[in-house]
Amino acid sequence: MPTPTRVPQEERTRVMRARLLEATVELLVERGFGGTSTTLVSERAGVSRGAQLHHFPTKNALVVAAVEHLTEVRGAELAAAASALPAGGRRTRAVLQVLADHFTSPVFTAALELWVAARTDPALMEAVAPLEQRVGREVHRLTVELLEADEARPGVRELVQATLDLVRGLGLADTITDDARRRDGVLDRWADVLDKELP
Amino acid sequence: MPTPTRVPQEERTRVMRARLLEATVELLVERGFGGTSTTLVSERAGVSRGAQLHHFPTKNALVVAAVEHLTEVRGAELAAAASALPAGGRRTRAVLQVLADHFTSPVFTAALELWVAARTDPALMEAVAPLEQRVGREVHRLTVELLEADEARPGVRELVQATLDLVRGLGLADTITDDARRRDGVLDRWADVLDKELP
Repeated sequence: MPTPTRVPQEERTRVMRARLLEATVELLVERGFGGTSTTLVSERAGVSRGAQLHHFPTKNALVVAAVEHLTEVRGAELAAAASALPAGGRRTRAVLQVLADHFTSPVFTAALELWVAARTDPALMEAVAPLEQRVGREVHRLTVELLEADEARPGVRELVQATLDLVRGLGLADTITDDARRRDGVLDRWADVLDKELP
Repeated sequence: MPTPTRVPQEERTRVMRARLLEATVELLVERGFGGTSTTLVSERAGVSRGAQLHHFPTKNALVVAAVEHLTEVRGAELAAAASALPAGGRRTRAVLQVLADHFTSPVFTAALELWVAARTDPALMEAVAPLEQRVGREVHRLTVELLEADEARPGVRELVQATLDLVRGLGLADTITDDARRRDGVLDRWADVLDKELP
């Protein structure tokens, strides 16, 4: 007779936290910051109110942890996509596609909800600003690496920053109208420019 | 003895509408979409609830009209800034500055609040999407004109679009952290690229 399976407490806690954070991201995407409440999150995650409040005592704690969690998940996905990139002439365009996919994904939408809410909520801003800076640095570092760009050369750093501002702008446009075709044309053109400007 | 001044009804209505719309934009910028209510707007504008509801029966009607109004005001400002642009080598950078100023102004912030709210509010989206398309076309047309770009040439249209996606991305970044210095460097570099790519 097999020994009954025992899931250690630590593992159960980890799974419950992940369920809460994923439910929060889903609600941010579906209903926006204003439409997301801790009650809805605990219902959707199937976690008791008590357990939820123990881990995340406020809505702000929950939404910041959720976007941080999703950022980590997407970071791992980005790294995986990066390892599958082609070499040679098509590489730049493929890198831009990876970035654009990231900035039109649910992680961007959830983060956008958080950014906009934080703009008029100082307590939330205090938590969001450091997260945003850390994520910004990380995505910049990854982009430099993927583009094989040499930031010691003058103008290269600004071109990498411009690339990220561009995909951020494309991400914002995408939340209003699905403009995947227009986006493709812009990215094709920008890849041409980068191939000329980044030796 | 002078005749008592009589303000015609039409003029009084126009002034009252403008006061309501300006109060709405202020509240969107200060408190966000969620923190803006028709009651707060009528208080701030000093307009009775009855008169306000007569002109704008719902919050959605009010916020859409407010962003439309502000867009018109800023459009006139953009056109004025455009007429003062230098010719020659510094022109491209000056055009980018005009655009970046536009996308980091209260009109952008108020529009951002509206876009994000509309994402999860189908009734609001129905009103916002056509406004957004109209404004987008208008800003595109103006940018082509200011950059003296010839869209008949291949790749020019996409570069103009990329420029607007870039400044939209810069505008979004600016709502989280004041990054005016970083923005200057990015715009300098982008101007170099445009001067090479737009003959």
